[in-house]
This record gives sequence, structure tokens and C-alpha cells, in this order.
Amino acid sequence: MKVFGLAIHGGAGNIQKEYMTPELERAYEEKLSEALEVGYKLLASGAPSLNVAEETIKVLEDSPLFNAGKGSVFNHQGKIEMDAAIMNGENLTAGAVAGVKNIKNPITLARKVLDISDHVFLIGEGAEQFAKDNSIDFEDDRYFFDHKRWEQFQKIRDTEATQLDHSQSNVDILENNKFGTVGAVALDQQGNLASGSSTGGVTNKKHGRVGDSPVIGSGLYANHQCAVSSTGHGEYFLRNVVAYDIVKSIELSSLSLKEVCENTINKKLADIGGLGGVIAIDKNGLVAMPFNTPGMYRAFKTSNEEGCVRMYDY
Amino acid sequence: MKVFGLAIHGGAGNIQKEYMTPELERAYEEKLSEALEVGYKLLASGAPSLNVAEETIKVLEDSPLFNAGKGSVFNHQGKIEMDAAIMNGENLTAGAVAGVKNIKNPITLARKVLDISDHVFLIGEGAEQFAKDNSIDFEDDRYFFDHKRWEQFQKIRDTEATQLDHSQSNVDILENNKFGTVGAVALDQQGNLASGSSTGGVTNKKHGRVGDSPVIGSGLYANHQCAVSSTGHGEYFLRNVVAYDIVKSIELSSLSLKEVCENTINKKLADIGGLGGVIAIDKNGLVAMPFNTPGMYRAFKTSNEEGCVRMYDY
Repeated sequence: MKVFGLAIHGGAGNIQKEYMTPELERAYEEKLSEALEVGYKLLASGAPSLNVAEETIKVLEDSPLFNAGKGSVFNHQGKIEMDAAIMNGENLTAGAVAGVKNIKNPITLARKVLDISDHVFLIGEGAEQFAKDNSIDFEDDRYFFDHKRWEQFQKIRDTEATQLDHSQSNVDILENNKFGTVGAVALDQQGNLASGSSTGGVTNKKHGRVGDSPVIGSGLYANHQCAVSSTGHGEYFLRNVVAYDIVKSIELSSLSLKEVCENTINKKLADIGGLGGVIAIDKNGLVAMPFNTPGMYRAFKTSNEEGCVRMYDY
Repeated sequence: MKVFGLAIHGGAGNIQKEYMTPELERAYEEKLSEALEVGYKLLASGAPSLNVAEETIKVLEDSPLFNAGKGSVFNHQGKIEMDAAIMNGENLTAGAVAGVKNIKNPITLARKVLDISDHVFLIGEGAEQFAKDNSIDFEDDRYFFDHKRWEQFQKIRDTEATQLDHSQSNVDILENNKFGTVGAVALDQQGNLASGSSTGGVTNKKHGRVGDSPVIGSGLYANHQCAVSSTGHGEYFLRNVVAYDIVKSIELSSLSLKEVCENTINKKLADIGGLGGVIAIDKNGLVAMPFNTPGMYRAFKTSNEEGCVRMYDY
């Protein structure tokens, strides 16, 4: 049997043990494990990596814990605008959507663009019309943010964090934890790679801001050699074309996936002040998950390695 | 004095001598020459490449000959939605806008995003609000398309083309000629590079489609080594991250700018069926302008080379 596996992330940011409660830590670990198992089982049963990227991201989008789908943050107008993209490394097909409202699973909309549209990248009302034309699930505003649960988390964290560090703004910590995206990369038994990403953007964003998540090359990329999905301060990822920087370095250099990913995140991106991380898997099932923030929600599992579920810098 | 120079394009497509009239040919040559001279004079006077990219593209946006700004094509709803982006190779800052209506010069809006926004990429109504907040010029619908002039061109071409080739659809030829974007790349006397692109999209586009033009990495890129601007079938440029593919190849390979650009356009892009071209300039003032379509409106001039204004495959 050929090697297969996947890696997922739930965002990078100021994720540190001292700001966590045991309950919250467990909630994140459980949801990451659940998404990982959904994807791994699909891969083990022979499913294509493209389906695995979509299905895994759907699990994370459906949770209020992550800034994507249901857990998306509010923009300046108190609305939720989401972005997502997915790419098939087998044939370099891709689908991306940006600035879409009330779509239950933006990753599924991106997948529909990949599958049936002549276009790659749809935005705003046009993308929502495409969703309606193709029977994609919508949800009303109430679905997208569980205020009670969020306020609960906030209170728990405030109590916990103020006891530990009075110099930190707990709201900042909270928001930093929601800074980012969710993403998945997968290698299937046929040797094909795929990647996907989905985000609710940044809190209080104005002016129709789009980050790197729906941008092929910056937020994600997949070809025959590797698949990458990014998370972090989107503007810096756009300016550095992070995902393709990694993919092209793999093509042209003799460095390993780990070395290439670390160069891009800890040198190239850090040089211009960019914070965040990536998950990547190559055609041999090797995984890299570097980040230059205090933490990143992440997990991986392959047919060769037991893998792990992590969030801190250890 | 250090070498300086620029290259511009006005779109790639089915541009062939037999479908042209002498009048139309002259109109294209004159407008390309005018834009080139505007940019070259600025560079000669010591202006930064970023200003040159913007000012050169404005000349092309203000002409009805090209599919950008005033000459933008209608989408499916009979509206004009434009995209543009600009990047400063000196510090990797960038600004991009997509799906904006009634903006006189989308490249100037992208420049404003680069200059004063914390964000890189703004879309739709949010981007228009940003434009209003920052006193960017708007124009009403009538400004954007000179129907009389366009019908005139169409009639001239129909007459001309049907005499030469009855098998071709003249409407297709016409539309193919408007397929694409305008763009500029420049190297200034300080040794800094910049690139820009602007487009009115594809005729009859639906669903808020965005091509590669506003996408950093696909439609354009600039760093310390070279500046690239793309034009062609946007979906294929997005899937191949064309501009950054060239930039990263320059960084990691020992090939020349011409070799790298030709590899990307004639091999990598052509392999998946992508049509179009790029203009590129490197830090030594060397220029490459490869395309895999019958023609591309293009011109270049440097302090080392007299340059040229061309549209056919010779």
C-alpha cells in the first residue's frame, strides 16, 4: 500500500498554555482530533485527497472554535464575510470564493467552483448567486455565531489570564486566537495531493478586505510534489506568495520539505514582519508544520507516522 | 547613470495583421508609444518605478482601445467591473482591488491601497467605499464605453476580416483582442522595480469572476530582482501563479530572464492549455516579453536599448 496522510490547522496566533483553561484546551484537541480522524478514515478507505481536504475543513467550519464557517468573526458592519479555496494537485484545478455571506460551508462552495465553473475565483454577490444556482447550503445570521458560548469562553479566559499576566489585554489574546483560518493538506493512496483553506477573516475588518486564504499561491497550493495551506497575517502572506514560494523551492532546490517550509516562515516571511505558519505534505507523505507565532492549532497523521495534535510551541 | 527602463502591454490574444486595418494598427501603436514615452520621461527625470507603473497604466486605462478603465468590457449584467493591482519591489508592499465599478483609474485605487491601507486586497463595495473615503475619481456608466467608436471598429474589422478568412468568427476575433489586461513593469534610476496590472475582465462574465490581474503572484509581482506583469486567460495564470513562478525561478536558477519567462509561458503555462504572455524587466534593465498567442500589444524602452512597439508575432 502506498503512503497516505494529512495535516490540518485551525489558525496560528498567541496561543499559549497560560491563557488556556483545561476545558478549552480539551475542546480544541477534541475538535482537531475529530477532523483528523474524519480525513484519515477517508484516506484509508481510498478516497481522493481533494475530498479529504473538503471534508476535513467542513468539520472545522462547523465548529464555533475556529475562525471559519460557523465560528467566523464579525466585520466592521457586524456582518460575516468568508473566504475559501481548494486546489487539486493532480491537475492544478482550483476553486476560490471571497467575501461570501451566509454560506454554511465556504469550502464546499469553493469545491463546486473547482468542479463545474469555467472560472477559478468568484467574489461577493456573484459568488453567492453561483451558490444559489448550484444548491449550496445557506444559513441565516443566527447560525454563524454562538454568542453565549463565545462570551463564556471569554469570561473563562479573562479570569484565567488576568491571574497570570496583567500586562496582556485579554481581548487581544482572545482575538489573536481567532486570527487566522482553517486548512487541510492531504496525500491519497493514488499519490495525489490537495490543499484547502477557509476563513472568516479578521475581526472588525473594513472595506471588503480579503486576506491570503482564497488566493491560489498565497493561502494554498498543490501540485504533484507537495500541498501547502497557510494561516496568519494575510497581508504578509500575499506579499510573499507563501504557499507557492514553498512549492517552487521544492521544485528547484535540493532542500527537504521541512527546511523549505522553515526558510519561508522563519526567514522570508519573518523578514518583513509576517506572523503565521503553514502545514505541508509532500508526495512521500512527509509533513511540515512550522510557525513563527507562539502557537498554532495543528494536527497530522500518516500511514507511516502516528502523528500528533498540538497547539503550543512544543 | 544607472540603467533604467520600462515595458508595457495592452493584452494578448488573436492579434494578427490580417484582421487589422491600417487605422486601427496606427491607433494601437500611437497609444502604446504615448504610454511608453510618459513612463520613459518620468524615469529619465528620476521618478520612482512605482509612480511610472501607475502613470503608464493610467494612459492605457484612459483609452477605449484596451480592456481596462474606460475600455472595459461589459459583464453578464451589462455592468463594468474592474480589477487592478500594483506592487513595489523595493519593500514588497502591494495594493489590489477587484470587482470595482465606476472607478476612473483602478490602478490609482490600487496605489492608494498600497500607500495608506493596512490591507493589501480590497473587493467590491468595500473597495468602492475606500475609494470614496479617499477622494478617488469616479465616472458614470457613460464614460466607460464608447459604443459608437467600438461599433465602428467592429464594422471595419468585419469588412476586413471576412475578406480574408471566412472561417473565423469576427466577433470572436474582436473579443479575443479585448481579452486581457494592461500592465507595466519599470526599473528606476535608484535600481527599484515595480509592476502593475489593470483589467476590465472578460466579456459577458458571470458570478463575480476575478481573473489573475489583481492577484499578487499570478497577475503581477516585483521584488529586488525583477518585475513581472501578466496578461491572458486569467484562470490558467492563477493556477500556475505565473508572475511569481518567474520571480522565484530567477531567484533559484541560473537561467536568464528571457529563458525563465519563455519556460513559464511556452512550457509550464502551455502544458495546461493556458494562453497569454508576460512582460518582465530585471534589475539590470533586461526585458522579456514572451507570449503564446498570435499577438500581444507590447512595447519597451530602456536607457540601454531603443526598444520597440509591437503587436504581432514579429
